[in-house]
Amino acid sequence: MATIPLSVLGERAKRASRELARASRLAKDAALHACGAALVGVTGEILAANAEDVARAGRAGVSATVVDRLRLDAGRVVSMAAGLAAVAALADPVGEVVDGSVRPNGLRVRRVRVPLGVVGIVYENRPNVTSDAAGLCLKSGNAVMLRGSAGALESNRAIAAALRRGVAEAGLPPDAIQLVEDVSHEAVEEFVKLRGTIDCLIPRGGPALVAMVLEHATVPYVVDGDGNCHVYVDESADLDVAERIVVNAKMQRPSVCNAAETLLVHAAVAPVALPRLAAALRGVELVGDEAARAIVPDIDPATDEDFATEFLALKLAIAVVDDLDAAIDHIARFSTGHSEAIVTRDYAAATRFIREVDAAAVLVNASTRFVDGGELGLGAEIGISTQKLHARGPMGLRELTTVKYVVEGDGQVRS
Amino acid sequence: MATIPLSVLGERAKRASRELARASRLAKDAALHACGAALVGVTGEILAANAEDVARAGRAGVSATVVDRLRLDAGRVVSMAAGLAAVAALADPVGEVVDGSVRPNGLRVRRVRVPLGVVGIVYENRPNVTSDAAGLCLKSGNAVMLRGSAGALESNRAIAAALRRGVAEAGLPPDAIQLVEDVSHEAVEEFVKLRGTIDCLIPRGGPALVAMVLEHATVPYVVDGDGNCHVYVDESADLDVAERIVVNAKMQRPSVCNAAETLLVHAAVAPVALPRLAAALRGVELVGDEAARAIVPDIDPATDEDFATEFLALKLAIAVVDDLDAAIDHIARFSTGHSEAIVTRDYAAATRFIREVDAAAVLVNASTRFVDGGELGLGAEIGISTQKLHARGPMGLRELTTVKYVVEGDGQVRS
Repeated sequence: MATIPLSVLGERAKRASRELARASRLAKDAALHACGAALVGVTGEILAANAEDVARAGRAGVSATVVDRLRLDAGRVVSMAAGLAAVAALADPVGEVVDGSVRPNGLRVRRVRVPLGVVGIVYENRPNVTSDAAGLCLKSGNAVMLRGSAGALESNRAIAAALRRGVAEAGLPPDAIQLVEDVSHEAVEEFVKLRGTIDCLIPRGGPALVAMVLEHATVPYVVDGDGNCHVYVDESADLDVAERIVVNAKMQRPSVCNAAETLLVHAAVAPVALPRLAAALRGVELVGDEAARAIVPDIDPATDEDFATEFLALKLAIAVVDDLDAAIDHIARFSTGHSEAIVTRDYAAATRFIREVDAAAVLVNASTRFVDGGELGLGAEIGISTQKLHARGPMGLRELTTVKYVVEGDGQVRS
Repeated sequence: MATIPLSVLGERAKRASRELARASRLAKDAALHACGAALVGVTGEILAANAEDVARAGRAGVSATVVDRLRLDAGRVVSMAAGLAAVAALADPVGEVVDGSVRPNGLRVRRVRVPLGVVGIVYENRPNVTSDAAGLCLKSGNAVMLRGSAGALESNRAIAAALRRGVAEAGLPPDAIQLVEDVSHEAVEEFVKLRGTIDCLIPRGGPALVAMVLEHATVPYVVDGDGNCHVYVDESADLDVAERIVVNAKMQRPSVCNAAETLLVHAAVAPVALPRLAAALRGVELVGDEAARAIVPDIDPATDEDFATEFLALKLAIAVVDDLDAAIDHIARFSTGHSEAIVTRDYAAATRFIREVDAAAVLVNASTRFVDGGELGLGAEIGISTQKLHARGPMGLRELTTVKYVVEGDGQVRS
């Protein structure tokens, strides 16, 4: 079967986006439920397609972690459908009046939330992203162009076909969901240049993908970047709290972007805190600066590269800092602006950390792991923005919209 | 004098931005007033520098319009100072709590407005932009890097020096205002690649500048794009209102982006409306489609290129449309997404136009000329965004900020 050119997929998505932008919440929620039912109804086909992807990955010698992300079972298909039902239950952001006023000349001005139009997503091996991203875009009134990885192509085809059927059953345009089946490198470079078609690109992947987007994209994009997150244990920290938070932030799910990668400890408390934290972090590979190694000598030295690295694994870099200023400076130097935490009992230290640390999220006495859409009350997320424009931190339905000024008058002209 | 490398200017701006982000409103307002006083205090020097720029432009044979934009007099210097005082009077967006809640686990979550950091502006010949942009950035807690045109370099030097002195007098870091004195083409390409330094680039210029930014920029940017604005006169329009609005939208200030460039008239009313509107538009060069020329035969034919062009002059393209759908389709095809107006007495037509036209601003029975920051209540503007991400429509102080999640807990960890 010949692959449909990207430009054609784009035109179809654009046309569908106009219809979807005017769809009622009732219609969109019905479509989300129909999509879920469609997915569950073809579980067998989805799992057969997924088995092909998994077998191919196995032949290619892909790592067990990657295969695990790729692999679906009946339970995971049900989870996708449940995810769509959860999105249906969220409030519709479209139509929200953000603010408004009457001007001195009688003009009635308001800003109204409207869909972006066509959202493009570039993502890696998890086939559930196909369903999750499509659901969030559908609910927010956007058409979506999904460019998943080559490794998940068969799974994505089966999932996208089911979703399109669900959308059509609910009377909305199936072209609102477009799977990009050309998974070549050339096609992804073409994809990020679909200016005029894609209103917002969300690249979900590693530094190589982000670098490609920075170099080639002409469409507007929101970077879902790395999380080199720090936990700073202040001089005044409650060490029970510190231990709980550091262990949770590092160990609860080390492969995700809101896991901690560096521990900073105030020098005054380091001789007591560090041995205790090191013991609690059993199973984590620790590397430390000179001052840390003077206290816990059996760990390897940490380089600047360690401090700059998002390990995404059971590895933690440790530095002892002289004071809060040194902690803030270390974070300013190495942070990727994702999530930064302080453990403290000191009001002034908490206040300064909140104000002076420049990140999407700053946390006081709480684990960095809370920085995701579900935990912060967004309901679901399509990514976590580490940039400052448009969206910062977890991106939910609201971040998939823009605003429009509506100005109503009675014949006013400007003098 | 050797020009300071861009990277050094950038480092200075970045350092200053950290200090400025924590400055109180009192300090920032004092600095704005000090900047205004500094400008007025060196009016003679500014006018002497400006005279050099004007003389150079004259020798280069630059058009009278461009020279007029470039030329300063004592009154214009006072206006710049008054503009800074007006910005001081605006509310400070920094610190605003955008929203917040307590999560079920007791975490206290809020989103707080914070400065972007370093704002970069690339602009053309108007030296007053140097002062206006610096004032808005200062008020919103941002450092600014100003890259004006070669033609205004002497004026910009004198203005920037006065502003830096004002900032310093108020006890804030003068490095918060950086004039880029290397006005070469190579330097502007380097400028738009200062990723990690410039947090938001605002290119204010024509299509060539925007194209350069799309191709080369790696920093985040907000495009201040063209305005190919339409006025649609509906079947039910009050023709007195239509005449007033069309004349105002086209003629009141034809050189600006919110002026109208195309008039669409419903076929049912065109035989009455068009002759009347054409007469009212005396002095405007009119071009029209076949149906328009059948009614007002003494105008030239309009090409698709005319309908796609932002004339920025006393020229107007006219099309007769069969119905509201055809008007919306014409706008969807040719609009740049800036400002689109309908003149109507029909509730359903107004409602559909508001909902279905995709633009930063849609207007009912009001002139497109109202779409600017001052008229819509933003107080002042740094540009008008025609993109959908981050800012849409007039950009004021709020659009020069981002948000930060602040999460406060009592030792919560994720399970």
